[in-house]
Amino acid sequence: MGRITVRRPVLRLSTTGTRGRRPDTLAVEEPLEIRVAGKPLTITMRTPGHDFDLVAGFLAAEGIIGDAGDLTAMRYCADTEEQNTLDVTLAPGVRPPDDSMTRAFATTSACGVCGKSSIEELRADRPYEVADDPVRLTPAVLAALPERLREAQRVFERTGGLHAAGLFDASGALLAVREDVGRHNAVDKVVGWALREGLLPLGGRVLMVSGRASFELTQKAMTAGIPVLAAVSAPSSLAVDLAEDAGMTLVGFLRGETMNVYTGAERIAL
Amino acid sequence: MGRITVRRPVLRLSTTGTRGRRPDTLAVEEPLEIRVAGKPLTITMRTPGHDFDLVAGFLAAEGIIGDAGDLTAMRYCADTEEQNTLDVTLAPGVRPPDDSMTRAFATTSACGVCGKSSIEELRADRPYEVADDPVRLTPAVLAALPERLREAQRVFERTGGLHAAGLFDASGALLAVREDVGRHNAVDKVVGWALREGLLPLGGRVLMVSGRASFELTQKAMTAGIPVLAAVSAPSSLAVDLAEDAGMTLVGFLRGETMNVYTGAERIAL
Repeated sequence: MGRITVRRPVLRLSTTGTRGRRPDTLAVEEPLEIRVAGKPLTITMRTPGHDFDLVAGFLAAEGIIGDAGDLTAMRYCADTEEQNTLDVTLAPGVRPPDDSMTRAFATTSACGVCGKSSIEELRADRPYEVADDPVRLTPAVLAALPERLREAQRVFERTGGLHAAGLFDASGALLAVREDVGRHNAVDKVVGWALREGLLPLGGRVLMVSGRASFELTQKAMTAGIPVLAAVSAPSSLAVDLAEDAGMTLVGFLRGETMNVYTGAERIAL
Repeated sequence: MGRITVRRPVLRLSTTGTRGRRPDTLAVEEPLEIRVAGKPLTITMRTPGHDFDLVAGFLAAEGIIGDAGDLTAMRYCADTEEQNTLDVTLAPGVRPPDDSMTRAFATTSACGVCGKSSIEELRADRPYEVADDPVRLTPAVLAALPERLREAQRVFERTGGLHAAGLFDASGALLAVREDVGRHNAVDKVVGWALREGLLPLGGRVLMVSGRASFELTQKAMTAGIPVLAAVSAPSSLAVDLAEDAGMTLVGFLRGETMNVYTGAERIAL
């Protein structure tokens, strides 16, 4: 499972003059270098745990692999002290990332655009079509998801520092949950789990995220064939644009009994 | 100022059966390509507005420039429709990012590690020393910062989708505030503003961020010479490690009347 939390001493203060030293639980953040056939591809800051899922999901999101058969092996490099370098062996015939792809990761914020010259170009790059996915969900099923995600999060209550992503079916049953200091990593871990289980594309499924819905997360859901993305907080403008263009259902501000449906309202059973 | 928000129609639902269409205000997210002397360096997803501050802060955080004199010009490329490509002309004698640096941005999560082989190596890379900064702050001054930051945020109340970073002096007076869909961008914009105003290093100042304190944000504060980082939410383990090593004061869970001091408690006047 990896080192998900650490304990650190903290000085707890208040303006009313109270103070005290106590241990605090922190979410662990460490760099993970991903190599393909020994060649460094990228470094991401992540919470250790489910690293194989993370790497599989990352490679799938970037279009390098399409299913579990494209991966021959993943192993931690023995030349590093910590388990912070993971080397991937692709199956014969799977095209490794070339230098232009390495260059394409030249981004500081997991933008998902990744060197592509335009949003139009990005939109052309879809392994699965989600627009015709016939899944339908009731508002009650959607409203129950945040609490189910939270219940499944073992760490958040202790650290307040981890994002979660959960995969649900149309009845609201939880299929997988993953946590990370980076919200994109949490989604990569969920998608990578599904890929390794042979479950892609994820038609009829709902991806629920604990924070906001950015362009990047919407793109990752779309690339995994997920027709419905639900978020506790706000979507960005580009997330809504992409969801609309891809025919996805995008739900935001899913809190308590209410929600905002930004796109794909035909999948909500009213 | 750029396109900070857009209006979109949204279907508002509740499990009690109420529903209605209404316009919703979304935070704008668009890609910005940064070029140096015409050569693409990186792409970041950001909220338009204060792009020059963003690029200056980014280049400073990466050690490419040190002060305003290192920049001869910044201009939007005329060959793109939107103002989403910004070309930087460095002053004569400033070493442009080489290919290894371009490679170093091969990261998906603004990790701050950027190709460096170890945390130790990263720690050696400090333009300013903050450990001896004598600034002292009272708990009351710190407790007042979140509300001041929120008051200065013009957009958050409308979208719920923007991170904020604010620079304060030791009396709690706000010097600058910037917003972005990406929290690292908000910090780059604040530091870039300071650089362009000739204010680096930011000794005696406090950086307040609206979310969590990651390794990356701590590193950006350290690189700008800021001795105190305060966050509304939790820090990560690596953020605390870096702050301790650099002699920074790191305050988390700054909410209401209380706060957690993780490192550098000697700067808090009790």
